[in-house]
This record gives sequence, structure tokens and C-alpha cells, in this order.
Amino acid sequence: MINVYFTFEPREDLRASVIEEFPQVHFDFTYGLKEELLAKADVLVTYGEDLKANHLDNAPKLKWIFVASAGVEKMPADKIVERGIYVSNVRGIHKKPMTESILAHILAYKRALPFIYEKQAQKQWDKKAKLSELNGSTALIIGPGAIGAEIGRILQAFDVKTIGCNRSGHAIPEMDETYKIDELLEQLPKADIVISMLPSTPETKHLLKDVHFMAMKSSAMFMNFGRGNLVEEKVLVKALKDGEIDHAVLDVYEVEPLPASSELWNLSNVTLSPHFSSHSSRYVERSLEIFKPSLSMWLEGKTTLPNEIDLNRGY
Amino acid sequence: MINVYFTFEPREDLRASVIEEFPQVHFDFTYGLKEELLAKADVLVTYGEDLKANHLDNAPKLKWIFVASAGVEKMPADKIVERGIYVSNVRGIHKKPMTESILAHILAYKRALPFIYEKQAQKQWDKKAKLSELNGSTALIIGPGAIGAEIGRILQAFDVKTIGCNRSGHAIPEMDETYKIDELLEQLPKADIVISMLPSTPETKHLLKDVHFMAMKSSAMFMNFGRGNLVEEKVLVKALKDGEIDHAVLDVYEVEPLPASSELWNLSNVTLSPHFSSHSSRYVERSLEIFKPSLSMWLEGKTTLPNEIDLNRGY
Repeated sequence: MINVYFTFEPREDLRASVIEEFPQVHFDFTYGLKEELLAKADVLVTYGEDLKANHLDNAPKLKWIFVASAGVEKMPADKIVERGIYVSNVRGIHKKPMTESILAHILAYKRALPFIYEKQAQKQWDKKAKLSELNGSTALIIGPGAIGAEIGRILQAFDVKTIGCNRSGHAIPEMDETYKIDELLEQLPKADIVISMLPSTPETKHLLKDVHFMAMKSSAMFMNFGRGNLVEEKVLVKALKDGEIDHAVLDVYEVEPLPASSELWNLSNVTLSPHFSSHSSRYVERSLEIFKPSLSMWLEGKTTLPNEIDLNRGY
Repeated sequence: MINVYFTFEPREDLRASVIEEFPQVHFDFTYGLKEELLAKADVLVTYGEDLKANHLDNAPKLKWIFVASAGVEKMPADKIVERGIYVSNVRGIHKKPMTESILAHILAYKRALPFIYEKQAQKQWDKKAKLSELNGSTALIIGPGAIGAEIGRILQAFDVKTIGCNRSGHAIPEMDETYKIDELLEQLPKADIVISMLPSTPETKHLLKDVHFMAMKSSAMFMNFGRGNLVEEKVLVKALKDGEIDHAVLDVYEVEPLPASSELWNLSNVTLSPHFSSHSSRYVERSLEIFKPSLSMWLEGKTTLPNEIDLNRGY
């Protein structure tokens, strides 16, 4: 019998639906990785943060890892590649919730929601906020993959001009213009909103320097919803303190959880989201909607599954 | 010489552009209505809240009132109609800022922005919020005029099903379905979000009763961005206290400013916006973009101008 091991526990009804749909498969579900269950697993379903290189020494049957998340940088890539274990993930699942979070932050900022909440808490009727508009502005999306394209699609609906910067500069329908990442510095002065969706790779680490923030408009909003090591915290703090940009919204950080000692906590022109902008009450349900057809294909012997991950590339 | 009298003062550069464009016209700009200037005015440009019936007894030349706002209910309608004074407004100007405010509130609520702000203020890294999603939900828009249609267009981009309720039930492209306002009660149970954009008319006053809130989903979000007398405050307070709905976002109230004694200030499941969701740093500029071509047409003797208002109908 085929063994599929989940290192998290979906809701009762969702587990039941998986078990019912695959009577030929034995499923284990535990909260956290148990080595004795991994030892007999053919397939591992994980959020991608619990599997360590040494675990693989005692996982002789493991042939496929399904990562129910987008980031795979905490996986033991070398060992997985060496063992020839197939890896796929839930790429695309974050597209809608993350886009909604990003638009929530942009619109809340433009339409003075923090001011509204503050005055309401003080039981004060106060109209003295400066409300601005999103329409007619320009957004630069660094790393417009599946999520960035969805953000671009929605921004275009709001009559925002979208500029994408990707490795090759290839055109993307949801971007009005696309440039190579090498041309980023020349594009930054055009943008009212700069959104990074870049994954963590050797090329993206500390990609943004002082000079990039200096190139942005002083009225610009910078959003990092990719990975925290895109910019050193001290560079970002300096840009915010010096007024090189007007506001930042961060969902990711160099160190997570963000340490209590971080200077970011003390700044008034930054919004700190605790790396959960992809979270959704519908997340596990959606992961299983991707996993179940993938498992069917795998059981039929298919060698290419949806959202295959090349761990050598890192995404 | 033609006299045009503004009872508000646009920014210096905007005033200069109007004066330059119409050398044949004399312009007066004052902060608040001065009777001696109204007395010689051919055209009055007003936000619509300062003109009283008795003012018209001493405004013999007045032929056209341009209202730089959407609401005309504070205007002395009978006297204006009796005098045959033409009225037009800036209908459409609020479309984008109001749509952005409404989407800001919806997305902030779904994506837990109040939670994020609160935890940040406490310098706490806390992921324990319940984040939900807008896509896949259903919105019911009561009174889908120019603003409601724009809201519908954006909601459709977010993959929200849109239902409109208007007087005649005539179809609107931005609404997936449209019903007559008489069928409202039957439509309410379908909606995750109920948005009223209704103007203030005898028919809309206290249109929503207890029974309407009881018909809504207990998970529903109710938004009133039309006029405050759509629902008695005590009806709304009861619905919120009894959990007939999950949350309300209000921009308009029966009495404005909302009195300090209002029970709404004490509820945790309501967001109170001080009737400014149409505000924008670009507002006056936009009003003039509508006013200037209208004035050209009027000077040419045209008898129909953009955004004509029928004061007998009230919008």
C-alpha cells in the first residue's frame, strides 16, 4: 500500500474527503514531523519548514514531496536533488489572498483607514484626514510571477499603470511595461508604489540598497511581500527615517519573528504585517484542491505534476 | 459681463486657470455665501449646503447653479424649481474615490488590517488573526448608479458576484443580476456584503427595517455610503447588538456629525467613517474639470449641460 504522510492536520471534513477519495492509499496526519512515519512514507505533504537533511537518511521510500506553501528555501535542497525526490508545491494558491492583502494595505493608506480607526477609538468625529486616490498612479512590481501578475491585473482595473521588472524583461499581459531587473534603478523614479514579490535566491539577497530607496519618489510607498532578505533592515530603516520614501508595508523580514529589538517597531511610517498575508481560512481546502488531482496523476504513474519545483533554481 | 460666483475658494493655481480660460467672465470666490455677491451672480458654484430659500429673493439674475457635490437635498428645491433655475452637479466625480474607500473597508476587514495595526501598536508579532477572502463572495448593491456601477466593476475584477437592486430592475453591465427594489428582501439572504448607495428621497427614508437585517446572513457586512436616513439608528444598533449581521461600515448617519450620545460609538462591530469617503486631494481640480466645459456650453447658449439635476426627483 502507498503511504502518504501529512505533517499537519487538515480539518476533520477535509481529511475525510481525502481518505474517501483514495481508498488505495494509507494516510497519516500528525501535527509536526514524526520520523517513524516519514520512514515508511512514499509521499510527504508538508509546509516545507520541518524537513531537515538528516531526516532523509531514514526515509528510504520517499519519492515525492508536496509542499503546501510557496517558499521552499528551508528545504534541504542538495539532499533532495541528490536523492532524486520529486518536489511540487501549491504555487498560485497565494495569488488571491496575497493580492487582496496588498490591495487592502494600498487602499487603506490612500483612503485614511488608520486615521478612521484611531478617531473612532477616541469617539471623535474628525474629517481632517488627507485622503488621496489610487487611480492614475504608477506601480512597479519587482518579480511579477503568478502573484505579481494577479496584483497587476487588479491594479489595472483600478486604472493604475503597471511596470514589471523581471530577470529577462519578457512581456507580461498584466504589466503595461516590463523591464529587466538590471534596469530597476532607472524605473524606480516613475513609481508611486513599489512592490517586491521576489523569492529568496542568491541573486535577490540584499538586492535593494540605499541607492534604490534614494531613486524612489519621496511620496512612494514600498511594499515587501516577497522575502525579507531582499533588503538589509538597516538600509530600510535609514530610508524611512530620512524620508527617502513616504511609507513602507512589510510582510517579510530578515529575521522572523521580527525581534523586539528591531528599530522598525519604533517607526511611524511603516506597517508591520507578521508574514501572514497569504493566510486564509480557505487555505488548506485550496491546498487539497491542488493535491488531490496531483496524487491521482502520481498514482497513475505520471512523471510531471502541476507546480513542479526545481530546487536547483530555488522556485 | 457675466458674473460667476463661487462660495468656496479653489487653490490659487486652479482659480488662475479658470480666470484665464474665461476672460469674458467676472469671477468672485469667497469662503461662504455673501448675499451681496449672490445678488449680482448669473451663475452660482456651491457645495450645495449654503443656499437657503430666502437667499433666492435677492438673486434676480441667477440662472444656473453648479453644485460641486453629489447631494442636493439641502438645496431649496421648491424655490429653485419655481424660479426655473437650471441645476447641474458633479455626478461621477465621487465614483473613483468612493469606490476606493469602499474596497479599502471591505479588504481591510477580510485581511485583518485592524488586527495588524493593533498588534503593531503593542509591538507584538502575532499571527493569530482570522484572515478571509473577498473573491468568491456575493455583494448586493442597493441603488447602483454611477458610483454603484463602478463598485460593481471593481468587485467583478475581484471575482465577486454582484447583484443590483434598483427602482425598475433594469439590467446594468456591472451587475451579474439586477432586481427591483421591491424584491430586496428576497435578495438579501444571498449577500455576503450589502452596500447601499441610495440617495435621500421620500422612498428611501427608513427603507431598511429590522426584517431586512434579519434577512441578511449573520456573517454579512453591511455598508451605508448613501444617506443616513436609509435606516433608523436604533434599528441598526439592534441588528449589530443581536448579531443579525457581523459588521457594519458607515459613512453616513441620521444626524451628522454623529452625536457623542450615539450608541454606535460603543459597538465593536461597526466602523464609523465621518462622511468623507468621497473626499480627495484631487476633488476641486476634478470639479473644475467638469465645470469648465459646462460653462463653455452655457456661454454658447446650450440649454442642456452635463449632469443636469431634476430637483423634483431629488437627484
